[in-house]
Formats: sequence, structure tokens, C-alpha cells
Amino acid sequence: MTTTDALDDMFVYTDRLQRTRQELARHEVDVLMVGPSADLFYLIGTAGHLSERLTLLVVPRVGTPIIVAAGFEVPLLARQRDLAEIHAWADGQDPIALVAEATGDVRGKTIAVGDELYSVFLIRLQAGLGGARWVEGGQVLRPLRMIKDGREIELLKEAARRTDDAWVEFITQPLSGQTEREALQRLLDLTYARGLAPNFGSCGSGPHSASPHHEPGERVIQEGDAVVFDWGGTLGGYHSDVTRTLHAGEPGDEFRRVYATVLAANQAALDAVRPGVRCEAVDFAARSLIEEAGYGAAFLHRVGHGLGLGVHEEPYLVAGNTLPLQAGMVFSDEPGIYLEGRFGVRIEDTVLCTDTGGERLNEAPRELTVVG
Amino acid sequence: MTTTDALDDMFVYTDRLQRTRQELARHEVDVLMVGPSADLFYLIGTAGHLSERLTLLVVPRVGTPIIVAAGFEVPLLARQRDLAEIHAWADGQDPIALVAEATGDVRGKTIAVGDELYSVFLIRLQAGLGGARWVEGGQVLRPLRMIKDGREIELLKEAARRTDDAWVEFITQPLSGQTEREALQRLLDLTYARGLAPNFGSCGSGPHSASPHHEPGERVIQEGDAVVFDWGGTLGGYHSDVTRTLHAGEPGDEFRRVYATVLAANQAALDAVRPGVRCEAVDFAARSLIEEAGYGAAFLHRVGHGLGLGVHEEPYLVAGNTLPLQAGMVFSDEPGIYLEGRFGVRIEDTVLCTDTGGERLNEAPRELTVVG
Repeated sequence: MTTTDALDDMFVYTDRLQRTRQELARHEVDVLMVGPSADLFYLIGTAGHLSERLTLLVVPRVGTPIIVAAGFEVPLLARQRDLAEIHAWADGQDPIALVAEATGDVRGKTIAVGDELYSVFLIRLQAGLGGARWVEGGQVLRPLRMIKDGREIELLKEAARRTDDAWVEFITQPLSGQTEREALQRLLDLTYARGLAPNFGSCGSGPHSASPHHEPGERVIQEGDAVVFDWGGTLGGYHSDVTRTLHAGEPGDEFRRVYATVLAANQAALDAVRPGVRCEAVDFAARSLIEEAGYGAAFLHRVGHGLGLGVHEEPYLVAGNTLPLQAGMVFSDEPGIYLEGRFGVRIEDTVLCTDTGGERLNEAPRELTVVG
Repeated sequence: MTTTDALDDMFVYTDRLQRTRQELARHEVDVLMVGPSADLFYLIGTAGHLSERLTLLVVPRVGTPIIVAAGFEVPLLARQRDLAEIHAWADGQDPIALVAEATGDVRGKTIAVGDELYSVFLIRLQAGLGGARWVEGGQVLRPLRMIKDGREIELLKEAARRTDDAWVEFITQPLSGQTEREALQRLLDLTYARGLAPNFGSCGSGPHSASPHHEPGERVIQEGDAVVFDWGGTLGGYHSDVTRTLHAGEPGDEFRRVYATVLAANQAALDAVRPGVRCEAVDFAARSLIEEAGYGAAFLHRVGHGLGLGVHEEPYLVAGNTLPLQAGMVFSDEPGIYLEGRFGVRIEDTVLCTDTGGERLNEAPRELTVVG
């Protein structure tokens, strides 16, 4: 993963690093270490090059951040020289020794590591920097990354808008006779033609629609199928993530009932959003409605996940998460009902929590749509 | 990452799991834990779904492997039921508790974790499974993954052949006037049109060609530019990885000298390959030739890396690696010379170590090619 379509103004990153130091103090963490990831992109404007060669941003609570990177990748970090000292290593050298040298004695200190750092590096860091306590970096970065600023919201809105636009064109054509793979490819082509960078896509038809993360294959879509599309792209690193469910040919009563239930649950979750409400309450709003309709056991997953530089990130709208919503949080609203061996329905929008409530970023048609 | 274009015969995976247990015994490791990754694909025929939801294969030295996975993703593991017990968890539950329950008391035991497991999971496992010693999984899986069997070699050969074929078509057209991004896209389109799954690509032109991992951008290729393309795709999960350097318009003497040096170094590395030779000796063969030509300081990286389900994997052909080559190893041979601010040249093939020496899997033209 390498992304440099970053926000242009390096001041943004200076500010984020400063706020990171405040979070380190608040969590009584001495040092944060982050490898190539969305976290790195958030902090310094490049996601780095994810590989077996260690790239590591080291942010001490006090003092200058450093970046340890393979020497020949240093040209890619030209803009980051204003943010951190760059310590280069060459193939055959040990980058962990460079980290140890930069951090000095860490006995008794607490070091947070980015959630997505490869374990092989954590194990080597634990061996090379003895006596430290190692904790999850997510707790430090969550308060920052989950509240989007104006620029981030603009990118998320525009990514959502273009994804909606692709959907509107997509549903003008019939689906029957195409494989899941072909149908999905057409949708992705329409999406990426609108300037979004490719990210992910899923399509499940007929009984496959009842598997939430079905991998699209050679099944031919036919009249009578429910067809679930879940897809997105990125703009400047920020994700879109939409799900819509179509029906090929006229649906029966149960499909209509399930569809109406999921649509109502999607609305109920949206209606539950406002600052101060617990994340779990949004899940509960959708779930209780689905339970009342008799499909509780068929709603197999949480109602939503945060969205930003990560396609899944904090906050998670899931039972047990008592975190209160705040203005600036962006997350998916995606209830689903999955009837094994028969069909599934999921309707997913991206939602922004504003000062007054939830605002959908997606407006692709949500009403039951029948295609050929 | 999700890949299910696996080898069809599940016996392959039973055998790999059995050999993994032998490696566990040999390394005195009690348990191996692997998350979504090429390692997982190698062991059970699916790479799993890489996300914040834990999917974990747990292979004890003795006893039945288990897979801990999100319940709604269990339909994707239908074929894996013959290999492992599946322990499902639901959103809101703690998957680490499931792992702890399955492994029992681990005090004093040694647990190896897959190199690419997210650190957030390792930290949670270390907290939830107290008293164990945690080590790199790479040491356990390296002896297996780095020796390719006949089926794997066929896939690597076919992936290489199709990538070469795309190159041959690509160089029939001029480059001048196109941006790096446009030129690379045309090459990738030709490659993926041949049935390879998209993977990666890089293009650096003019002075950008001197940055080995340059990210292609809006620079317009012009007469007088060296242009480095490094790209690949996958077939059944197995990678191709090729680099070729073109020149737009007639090159000067120094480019010709550098090109000839890199080409000779590529051949020297190939000639050094045979079973029993140390990995570092292949690097040395290329490097000493480049040093003799006076460009030693401009060869910024190791000469090669293993290739298979990972685009970079063991064995690494790098100074200090005394591992002896064995028949069945597959790796890149990619010397380069990078003259900062001016130009760079890299020529990369995939090479198979056979009983008698090195065999190139790529045959895309290597001679100096001038395009318009």
C-alpha cells in the first residue's frame, strides 16, 4: 500500500503529531510506533511501503519524531523531512538496532504500536528493546482519527457522491445472464471511471446473497435472485462503502417483507444518531426493529463501522460499545437479514454524525429496485 | 485480501499442515498462529478476510488445528472444514477468549505467530494467553514455503510467461508524451487482460527512474528519458514480478554503459545460482561486477527476494544471508544502478533454482530497447 494523494498542507500533519503527543500524555504512553498503514498516512501524509522491509514512525511523547526507513525509499519521504528526522538503513543492516538507538533505554516505559504493524516487527522490537510494556496504538490514535475535520468530510462526501452516481448508471441495465463477477466488474468500472481509486467489491446472488462477505464467482444471475452489491473506492485515501440489494425479476412477498424491514432498520439506525448517544444504541435501534419483525437471528453482524482512511475503523457500532457518538464521526449504517440457502438483503449508507443528528452521505436510491 | 483460486486438491493442505507440525517439532515450538495472509493461503487454501475481525488458524504440534473466525464468514470456510475445527464468534464477543479456550494453559509454551498478523491481535493474544514465549512464525513456515512444488512452479512459470507476453506487446508503441501513470496503466491493462489478477506496478521516468520504488505520477515521458517499469500480477495466488528499463530516444554513452553493466550483473547473478550456494553469494556476484564498473554505491538494494504466494518472501538474496540455495527456490534477480537526479536502470527476472543451476522464468527481451 502506498498512497500520496495526501492533504497538501503539511501543517495538517504537524498539528496531528502535536495532538498525538497530547494523547500519549493522556494515556500515559511514552512512545508511539507506527508502520505502513492508514495510521501512518493520517500522521505524516504517506502510507509508506508495506513490505518485509521495516518502515517505522517513532513518536516520543517529548522530542522529535523519527522515521526509520530503507535508504532507497527515502526519496519517497521528501515531504516528511519537515515532520521527522529520517534514519535510513540499507539491505543487510538491522533496522531494529536503529530504532533502539533512537529510543534509548526503554526499561519501564510504555510503547504503543500501530494496530496494523506486522507481528514480525513487534516480536523483533520486543526482543531488541527490552523491558518495555507494549500496548495497542489504537487507543492513542482512535480519538484523533475518528473525528473527521472539514477537509476529510469533504473527501468522504465526494467519494460517496461519485459512488452513488455509478450506482444510478449501473441499475439502468439488466443483470440476468451475467455472472456475479461480470456484474460486479461493470459496477466497479463505473465507479473507478469517476476518479475513485480501486478498493473492494463483493456481489452475491440468489442463495449467495445470504453470505454477508460472499466472494463473487461464476454463478449466473437469474430471474428470481436477490443480488447484493457491496463496494467502494477511495478519494485522496478516503473510502466510500455502499451496499444495495436488487431483485432480478418480480420478488415474492417474503423478499418484500425482508427488504422493507432492512430499509426500516437502516432508517432507525440513522434516526438514533446524535452526539452523546452510545455506539451500541445505534446497533440496538436497528436490531430491535429486525427482532420485532422476527428476523433477529438472521441479522448476523453489527450495524456499522467507522469509515475514513480505513474501510473499517473506529467507531464500531456494536453491542457492548459504550463510546458516545461525537460530531465529526463517520460510519456505515448497514443492517442486513440473511436467510441461509435462500436470500439476503443489506442496505448500507455512510453516515456523518453532526451536531444535530445523522446525515447520510449516500443518496443512491434505497427503494426496492427490480431489474431484468 | 481474499483469494480462493486455490489448488483444488485439499490433500495438498493436509500434507502442508502435517509438514508444518514437523517444523514445529524441529523448532521446539508448541503452537503456530496464523492470520489472513499468504501464509494462511499456503496452509489451508484461503487467505481469509484481512480486517479488524480476528480470523486465526491455530496449529498445535499435536492435535487438531482450529480456525477462529467471525460467524458470518464461516460460509467462506466450507472447504476448510476438512482441515480444521471451526470456532465461530459473533460481533460483540471476544475472539481471544475462544483462542485461549482452545489452547488451554500455555504457560511455559512457545507460540509462533505468522509474520503478517496485525500487532493489535498479538498484543491481545499476549495479554489473554499469559506466560507463553512468542516467536516469529516465519522460521517455521520458511522451510516449507520457500521450496516450491511442481504445481506451484507451473503457476509461477505461467504467470511469468503472460507478463512477458504483455511486455512484448507493450513495447510496440511509443512512450513519449504519455505520463508515467498512463504508460503504466497501459502495461497493467495488457497484463491483466491475460488473466492475471491485478497486483502492483511502478513506473519512473527521467530522474524518477533513479528512485527504485518511485510512485508513478503526472510527469510526462520525453525523449532522452530512461523509463523503468516494475510490475506484476498473480495467477492462482502466485506472483509475477518483472522489471524492464526502456529508453525514449537514442541514449548517450553513459546510459549504454550503465545498462550493459546491469545486464551483465543480472546474468552474473543467474550464473551464480545452484543448490548449495549461499544466498549472499548471488548478491555478491552481481554486486562485485557493478563495483568493478565503478557503480557500487549506486546499487542501492539487495539483488533479489523470493517469490511465490508473497511478492517478497524467503529466500532473500542479500549480504549476510548464509542460507544455502535449494532446488525449488524461486526468486528475483534484479540488480540496478541509480544515479540520483539523472537516471536509473534495473533489469529483473524471476529465477528458479533447479538441480543444475538457475533457470529464468522470464524471457521478455532484456537487450537495450529504444522506443519513441
